Parts: sequence; structure tokens; C-alpha cells
Amino acid sequence: MQIAPAFKAPTRLLMGPGPSNAPAEVLAAMSQPLVGHLDPVFVKMMEELKTMLRAVFLTRNDMTFPISGTGSAGMEFCFVNLVEPGDEVIVGVNGVFGTRMVDVAERCGARVTKVESGWGNSIAPQQIAEALRTVSKPKLVAIVHAETSTGALTPVEEISKLTHDAGALLLLDTVTSLGGCPVRIDEWNVDAVYSGTQKCLSCPPGLAPVSLNARALEVARRRRTKVQSWYLDVNLLASYWGQERVYHHTAPISMNYALHAALRLVLEEGLENRWRRHKQNHLALKSALAAIGLELASQDGHQLWQLNAVRVPQGVDEADVRKRLLNDFNIEVGAGLGPLKGKIWRVGLMGETSSRENVRLFLSAFCQVLNECGRKTDAKAALAAVE
Amino acid sequence: MQIAPAFKAPTRLLMGPGPSNAPAEVLAAMSQPLVGHLDPVFVKMMEELKTMLRAVFLTRNDMTFPISGTGSAGMEFCFVNLVEPGDEVIVGVNGVFGTRMVDVAERCGARVTKVESGWGNSIAPQQIAEALRTVSKPKLVAIVHAETSTGALTPVEEISKLTHDAGALLLLDTVTSLGGCPVRIDEWNVDAVYSGTQKCLSCPPGLAPVSLNARALEVARRRRTKVQSWYLDVNLLASYWGQERVYHHTAPISMNYALHAALRLVLEEGLENRWRRHKQNHLALKSALAAIGLELASQDGHQLWQLNAVRVPQGVDEADVRKRLLNDFNIEVGAGLGPLKGKIWRVGLMGETSSRENVRLFLSAFCQVLNECGRKTDAKAALAAVE
Repeated sequence: MQIAPAFKAPTRLLMGPGPSNAPAEVLAAMSQPLVGHLDPVFVKMMEELKTMLRAVFLTRNDMTFPISGTGSAGMEFCFVNLVEPGDEVIVGVNGVFGTRMVDVAERCGARVTKVESGWGNSIAPQQIAEALRTVSKPKLVAIVHAETSTGALTPVEEISKLTHDAGALLLLDTVTSLGGCPVRIDEWNVDAVYSGTQKCLSCPPGLAPVSLNARALEVARRRRTKVQSWYLDVNLLASYWGQERVYHHTAPISMNYALHAALRLVLEEGLENRWRRHKQNHLALKSALAAIGLELASQDGHQLWQLNAVRVPQGVDEADVRKRLLNDFNIEVGAGLGPLKGKIWRVGLMGETSSRENVRLFLSAFCQVLNECGRKTDAKAALAAVE
Repeated sequence: MQIAPAFKAPTRLLMGPGPSNAPAEVLAAMSQPLVGHLDPVFVKMMEELKTMLRAVFLTRNDMTFPISGTGSAGMEFCFVNLVEPGDEVIVGVNGVFGTRMVDVAERCGARVTKVESGWGNSIAPQQIAEALRTVSKPKLVAIVHAETSTGALTPVEEISKLTHDAGALLLLDTVTSLGGCPVRIDEWNVDAVYSGTQKCLSCPPGLAPVSLNARALEVARRRRTKVQSWYLDVNLLASYWGQERVYHHTAPISMNYALHAALRLVLEEGLENRWRRHKQNHLALKSALAAIGLELASQDGHQLWQLNAVRVPQGVDEADVRKRLLNDFNIEVGAGLGPLKGKIWRVGLMGETSSRENVRLFLSAFCQVLNECGRKTDAKAALAAVE
């Protein structure tokens, strides 16, 4: 029998694709004593969570709550409830998460039409329009708002209009966008949405905030077949998170404490302020990178504020740079995935992590490491561009 | 926009069906700073988690790790990976969790044969033997080891032998048993097992430890159809929790910190010591209840050490007693479910909560409340029976 030594977490600056750094208040909230999941004080807190999530999603949807799993469980929640075998589903694919949506939809028996765009590009509304014309009876159009794997943003409003004109539902992945740039569920007429906690909400990973509007709920309620997942069946979850409080599963108490504290901080800052902060720090980083001759790999005009796909300059070993940043500076940045593997670093400026000071900390360490890795880089020029 | 006040958790004595109280070390471990889910220090911790889980499950199964969801996600993990449409599955049903297994198995397309026993009773081996004779090609037999809804234990060894003689796999729910009474996965030849963290491991809810042996893994790998859940597909999870570390989902970092700390405490105490402690405190409570004329509702000889189903005496309002215990004494006990609703209290003595002091605290408050609720009860007699 082996007892491991107590785990001591190092203090990292988390500038990868998530998790971002969680504020001290959130970590402290999480370590409060446990209460029962049907305790009246916990039930009250669940209601507050729902109210605050609605404020962050900018929705009035009653069915707005956190799924007891990570962001990918949120994705699966939306598909298993809305899709039945044989349904026609259109999925925008321009990175890892669109690709994943196709897989999840097919496991629900969907007939999937992929709308593909290059990794780093957004999905254009006219692509969706074309797909809608070729599919006989589209039930659902699914789009990743902010592709974490490439740093590209896909605007939603026009796609939403096209989708609804064709009589389909719109499903939106906001895992990386929520809290870091405008996400307006009601104004954009999004029928189903999921997110994660560990990106721009700066809460530890473990929950997936979701929201369904009345139209989506009606589709889930009028299914011909049972939802294939018991754990994610909205018809059962509605009784647990609704007024009846019918026992379903034991909610992750501590994670909900953390989300409650994180949402309070988001709303105290204000959504507009928070979006502006993300935008400003992204622009500062981008200018600094330009000053040292580096560029972003994602499509101009569609670059995320919260995740910067930085093209690796020729002759530099991508993995070596990441390793040095982590080991010598306690800074985590992410690697590229799929076709972008080895070609980009993913530099996150999400939630708590998105600050002018962190941009400077990163630049000074990054320039140092680039010099060590054989690429002459002028840290002064980079830092001067930040102001 | 509404910002809720900061949540302040009361300090409850958690004597319901779970969660149990988490030790201070576990809560403190959880509030450490986040690291990335692919950070080498986290990857090392994942390996330690797997090693410690094997020690607690008493198994050598390589595929032993925590699912990123609660106990019910662990149940679903086992069924979606092992069952394909049309498969014959036998499920022991003697409470809420056997009933749930039937639902989950049917959503996987299984043809289910229920082996039913009264709520509070165990499943007898001869019942399983009979079912195995009536089913043409049984693929899986699923049993709840410790039924949290009724306080009844079903012994596993004989059922395991019968199951394997018939060429089927054995799936075991150990959500409430693991850490509180003997669970011997390899010795009992259990092919697939899931548990929860918030019962006798005294870790917050949010993860589901699971283990599959080589036989079960082979079944999952040789499926004709894709696993219907992407999130729970063991073929994908094996690459994430295995040596390849292929990105799948973002593990709930903080919850894994907590489980690491909780498993250390379990192993430091030692499994045998921990089981003995649970047994002794159960027997103490049972003697005390007998001294005041109360009895357990579950089958004699099959009563759980970690969960006591106390029959509500005539003339006492079950819900009123629970409410007073919670509001006046900060003690949570559980209500009955299904046919036992209003008829029992579920008094948990799980993990950290199972101590002689807590038995006394409970008895003194409980007798006080019973007196207030019109049933004359001699607290002294109850407490005297504890020693």
C-alpha cells in the first residue's frame, strides 16, 4: 500500500487555455464546511446561483443552472436532450470543439452536416445559409462562439437569424467566451447554451453552466425517445433544480460554493467593465508581440480577447519555450492542437488572469526565454508597446 | 441584476445519507491554488490518485481513476461502456439505486431482468441464480453493495461466483460501502465498480472513483457500437488518464486535490481500522436506539454500519424531528425515500462523521427532540448504552 505525500500546489500564473487563476475569495469560499445538498441553506444558494447565471448569460431563461460536470458535460447535456436518432444537425467546425460537437451529435444518432472553416478562421454566416439550403429538415445548428483551440471568434447574430428562419434551434458553445466578451443569449435568440467555469469566470473547473429557452425545453419534453443519458436528462434535472427539489444526484457542494463566489465577483465588476478589461489587455499583448515581430495566427477581425494564438517564429522550439516558462517562471501557456500543434502558443488572458501586470510579467519572461532559445528579442520594445 | 450576498456555510454535523463531514485537511487541500490539468505536477498527482484508489478498492486494475462527475455519473460510466443495445442485463433492485440502475441500463438499450427484494432487504444469491437461468445470454449482473436508501448490505461473493459461472460480468455499486466496510474488488472478482467521494471517503461530492478489470475493458474495447456518451467513453478516458495524456476534458483540479487528501487519510488510518470504527459506532448507536425502544428497519444480519434506517415510532412526525435537529442542533439526518418515505430516518455514520462523540451528540439531541415531539424518551438510558 502506497500513501502519497501531501500534495503542495505550486503558484502558477495560468496563461494557458484554462483553467485561469481563481481569486482568493473563490478558493476560500470552496473550502467552507460542507452542508447537505437538500439543506435549506444550500437550496437558497442554488436559487441565487441560477439568478446570477441568468445575469451573466444575459437571459431570462428559467432553466439556467450548472451541470455537475465540466464544460464537455455541458456540451453533451445540450445534444442528448435536443437530438434524437435521425435528426439533421448542422455543426460549424473550425477547431477542436466543433470537431467534438460532431462526435457528440453522432453518438446521439444525428445526421450531421459539417460546415468547415480553416483552423483560426470563423464560421461565415453564408456558409451556414448554404448548409441550411442543402439539409431537408434541419433541427439544430451548433456553433462554437470562441474556439479555444485556435483563438477565433464566430459572431452569432446573423447565424441565429438564418437558423431560426429555417425553423431550427441554435446551440452555442460559450465555454471560453462567457465573462470575457459579449455573450447575449436572449438578444441573440440562442436556444441552448453551455459554458465552463474555469475560463473567464475564473472559478475552478468542475461545473458547466447551461441555459435552455422555452423552445428548447419544449423540444426536450416532447421527444419520441428517452434522453440517452440519465445523468444529463433535463426532464429529471428540472425537478431537482426547480421548485420540487426532487432528489436526482448529489450536487458538488463545494464547486457550487466556488461558482457562487466567482459569479459575485463577475457581477460586482460588471459585465461591460469585464469585457473592456479583456479587450484592453488583449490589445496590449498584441501590440507588444507586434513590436517584437510576432503575430497572431487567428483571422484578423475575429481574434479572441481571452485567448491569443501566437505564431511560433521559425527556428524556435515551441515545446522548449513552454517548458522554460513553466519551470523557470511558473507561467503556464498552452500548446497548439491538431493542425496547429507545434505552430502556435496559446496565451490565455482569461478572467482574473487578464491584467496589465500579467501581460507585462508574461512579456518579460517570454522575451527572456526567446533569447535563451536563440531568437534575439527586445524585451524593452515589447514592454514599451504595452502602455 | 442581482448580486447575492456572500454565502456563509453553517457548521453542520452531517449524519444523513451523504455528504459526510469532510476533514479540515481535505477542505484545506481543495483551496490550494489551481494548476493546469496537463501540468506535470498535476499529472504526477493523477498517478498517485490512481495508486491510492487501487489500494482503497483492493484491486490491481490499471483502469482505476475518478470520473469527473458525481456517483451517478460513475454508474452511467459503467453501463454506457459495458452495455450495447439488445444486451441482457440482470439488476438487483431493493431500493432507489437498484431502481436507478434499471433506468440507466434501459437507456443504453439493455433488455433488463429485475431481481427484486423488499426495500430494506438484501438481494439473495438464489434470486440471482434463478434469474441467470431464465435469461438466455446474460451479459451483466449489476448489484448495489450498500443501498443508501434503505441501509441494507448485499453480500457479493456468492453472487459473483454465480455470475461468472454463467459467463456474465459483475458490476458493483460501492458508493456508500467504499471506506466504511470491506470492499475487495479483486478477491471478489468484481469486473466493474463505481463509488462516490462524499460518503465513507469523507471528501466533498463531485468525483466518482471507478475501476474496470481487463475483462470489462476488453468488452468496452470490442463493442460493435460507439459508446453513446462521449464524456464517459472509457476508450477516450483511457488515453487521458493513461500514459498518453491525450487531452479529453479539463479535470476538476480542486476536487482531485480534495480526493488526494481524503485518500491519504483513509490509508493512514488503514482500511481494517476504518471498517472496525464504522462497525463499532454502528453497534453503539443500535444499542442506544434499542435502549429507548427504537429499531432499525433494514434486514437483520444485513444492516449497514455506515447508514442506519431508524424506524419512526408511531405518533411522531418524521419531518418535524428532522427539521428540529437541523434548526436547533445543526444536525442533518436523512428522510426515507419511496415506500419508506415518512417511515424512517436515515442516520449516517460515514467516514469522518463516524465517531463515538458524534453518536453521543446525536443521541442527546435526538432524545431531546423526541421529547419535544411528544414521545417520552430517556436520554440517559440511550447514552448509557453507548459505552
